[in-house]
This record gives sequence, C-alpha cells and structure tokens, in this order.
Amino acid sequence: MSRLVLGLALSIVCALSPLHAQTSGPEEAVALYGAAWSETDTEKRLALLEKAWAEDGVYTDPTAELEGRDALHAHIGAFLDQGTGASIVLTSKVDSHHGNRLRFSWSMVSKDGETMVTGIDYGELDDDGRLRLIVGFFGPFPSLDENAGGSP
Amino acid sequence: MSRLVLGLALSIVCALSPLHAQTSGPEEAVALYGAAWSETDTEKRLALLEKAWAEDGVYTDPTAELEGRDALHAHIGAFLDQGTGASIVLTSKVDSHHGNRLRFSWSMVSKDGETMVTGIDYGELDDDGRLRLIVGFFGPFPSLDENAGGSP
Repeated sequence: MSRLVLGLALSIVCALSPLHAQTSGPEEAVALYGAAWSETDTEKRLALLEKAWAEDGVYTDPTAELEGRDALHAHIGAFLDQGTGASIVLTSKVDSHHGNRLRFSWSMVSKDGETMVTGIDYGELDDDGRLRLIVGFFGPFPSLDENAGGSP
Repeated sequence: MSRLVLGLALSIVCALSPLHAQTSGPEEAVALYGAAWSETDTEKRLALLEKAWAEDGVYTDPTAELEGRDALHAHIGAFLDQGTGASIVLTSKVDSHHGNRLRFSWSMVSKDGETMVTGIDYGELDDDGRLRLIVGFFGPFPSLDENAGGSP
C-alpha cells in the first residue's frame, strides 16, 4: 500500500515538474535565440535553436514569414551568408509578463559598428520555455504626424 | 444548366468575399478598440467591441489576463468606473505587417492632461478584422544597464 502511495506521489511530482523545460525562461530563451543570429557554424546554430526555438515556432517581420525551426535556421543562415559582417545585437533587457509574453529591442549593426536598422520584437514562449513566436517590427513607432509611416 | 453555373459562381464569390469583415483592417480595429477605452456608455462600448474585438479575444498586460469580449467590456468598465477621469490615448499610428500583426504606442493621461503611464501594445487580427489578441507592456524598454527593470 505504501509502495502504491509512493508510486502515485512520484507520478504526480513528475507530471508537475518542468523536467522538459529547455530554458529557464524569457531571458535565457532570447539570449540563446540572439546568439543564433550570430552563429555561422550551422551545427552550433541548430543546437542553439533546439534549446531556444519550438519545432513549429513562427517567425515573422515586415519582410518574412516562416514556420518551423528548420526554416528559421535556414533564414538566419541566408542572412549570415550575405557576408556583410552585419550583426544583430540586443539593445534592451527582455521585458516579460505572465512568464511567456515578452518584448525586447535590437539593432542591426554593420561591421564598422554603425547602426543600420533598429527594431523591436514581440515574443511568446511555449510550455517548454522555447520561443513559439517572434514578431519583429522595424524602426521607431510611426508618428501620428507622418503622412505615411511604419513598416512596409 | 446556366442557372446552375450562375448559382455555383455566386456561391464561390460569396465564400471568397470578406462580407463578414467587421473592420477595414488594423487601423480601424485599433481606432474602435481605443474608442472603447473612453466610452462610459456600456451599450455603446459593447457595440464598439462587437466590431473591433473577437468574441474569444485575449487581453493581457502586466496586471491583467482575460479572455472574451464580455470580460474585456467589464475590465474597461472597471477602469472607467474608478472615476479618475484618466484616459488612454494613442501616441503613434498603427504599424502593421501581413495584414494581421500590429503594434502601437499609447499613454494614460490624467484629467489634467499629465502623462501617468506610457506603454506599447502588440496585437493580432482574426480573419474577420477583429482583434483576437492585445498584449500590453508598460513603460520604456528596460535598459541594458538597469539592475532591475521592466514590467512587474
């Protein structure tokens, strides 16, 4: 009987524990994801995305919309293969609430250190602590005074 | 036979036409949604949300998480019932891409015209042109230098 109770208790503990968590939360997920954008070694980049990005995660910005870890892996590879030496750097800490909704800001910086593009990302984590969604926006928020503003 | 073909063609046209669209897109959806935050007449506020907000839409910010049009209607009502005279005003145009993903910035302004809180919202539209998700964040993006920053 006590063995049955112990087994039941262990089952409950295992079911409740986040043993499957791949990251410690928004900060680590975004740090690994950000590192992937600079990782030219394809195997190392995939390893970063395996921890930080859901297998069916969706990435979109004004110029792209793709689904799945492999598609993002290839998308970042195409960016890095341009060979411009430009890199994506985070320009804010990760701001999150409810454990799974987050935002951060970033810049694309040329190899000479000049800011080429600024942007912000909205993101969501899945229950495994991996990013299941990143939606990027480019530039500042469009002014109320602009006749035409915002992302393309 | 020609009547059959006409009927079939009409069926296809009706199925493809966005006759069910409730808004013309991100700008109108956010304008109606923003107006709801200042509408103290409960019936008029509900009418605004019936056009701008999906029946099962999710609203969340650092202090709230709720699902459904009725829940949002009540949430805005509770804000307005505080009787502070504070209002939410949009401080940017709506910036969107792919027709359904958007961002805008806003301020909470006191009845004396002073800015009490600033924030940004990320939003998504459903196929009917209604908001199915708004995720709000308060204040500026947390600085990389801050020891502790961001939303609670």
